[in-house]
Amino acid sequence: MKLLEDRILRDGKIYEGDVLKVDSFVNHKIDVGFISELGREFYRLYKDCGVNKILTIEASGIGIACLVAMHFDVPVVFAKKSKSSNVSPDVYTSKVESYTHGKTYDIIVSKEHLDSNDRVLIIDDFLAKGNALRALKEVVDQAGACAVGAGIIIEKAYQSGGDKLRKELGLRIESLAKIASMSVEGGIEFC
Amino acid sequence: MKLLEDRILRDGKIYEGDVLKVDSFVNHKIDVGFISELGREFYRLYKDCGVNKILTIEASGIGIACLVAMHFDVPVVFAKKSKSSNVSPDVYTSKVESYTHGKTYDIIVSKEHLDSNDRVLIIDDFLAKGNALRALKEVVDQAGACAVGAGIIIEKAYQSGGDKLRKELGLRIESLAKIASMSVEGGIEFC
Repeated sequence: MKLLEDRILRDGKIYEGDVLKVDSFVNHKIDVGFISELGREFYRLYKDCGVNKILTIEASGIGIACLVAMHFDVPVVFAKKSKSSNVSPDVYTSKVESYTHGKTYDIIVSKEHLDSNDRVLIIDDFLAKGNALRALKEVVDQAGACAVGAGIIIEKAYQSGGDKLRKELGLRIESLAKIASMSVEGGIEFC
Repeated sequence: MKLLEDRILRDGKIYEGDVLKVDSFVNHKIDVGFISELGREFYRLYKDCGVNKILTIEASGIGIACLVAMHFDVPVVFAKKSKSSNVSPDVYTSKVESYTHGKTYDIIVSKEHLDSNDRVLIIDDFLAKGNALRALKEVVDQAGACAVGAGIIIEKAYQSGGDKLRKELGLRIESLAKIASMSVEGGIEFC
């Protein structure tokens, strides 16, 4: 999506250690009008899939998911990150290995808010190794719900997490910007 | 706001320990159309105040703030919760004593995203003792920005945190539902 690629080139900041910061419009300051335009694109892509719920993960996924959900007119459920390993029988749960933070955490979703009647669109800001997306898909599976697909703002395609999940899980993943390569010196090349 | 009071009475759950859960439309599952209606009300209340930025705190404030911000057509900045006590010179920071979690944490906002030209509306889901709101106001003050007011979904008025902040800080606080009393046996009385 050219609108997004241009914005990433203009406002994204690349740091050593394979870090792309889009804090000025996605992750810390949120340009709600712009993100809503991305939501319109996700709606165009998934409008015929019977989506009745959007699932994301706290914290930075929440705002994006809400702005996307307005186009679909469906509720958002966000998975909570949990430090405790006590798993309540009232929740679905899965583990995420965080590349950014170098640790593993649990995510939980209350069974009240997801069930086998749901057709779920998973929304997240970044897809790199795909660990968060894999965990969210597991939660959907535990609920017996159908994951119609995922909508990602920025996919680091060179890390192959997305293609692995497309193949392994047969999951439809639509990423609005796919990065082919990225470095502090060379900048960003999109796919 | 009657629409909200009715919804709280219908879907809110009261637990021992002064806990009101509104997980089914505000805090875990988010009814985006409904929250957007609350956003319309905040817009009506603050539309003449020159608001150019909305400030909230992760995680559950983010979705609400984004849905409110769409009415104002301004960006959202969310304060991040930080466990480290290393304060970077690039951030504003303040401390929040959490009643719910029984501990103190730091909140941080990058200096890039808030400055003395900003007229800030602070948005949050709950106001009880007022500690999060006080910390967000401190961050606004550190930036030399103007806090035009706060928009709260549910104020536990019987805890007096809101009135204390109104008096002490001279801050305009508009709460869409103000709870006068609450108990498992007696239910909820609004102000």
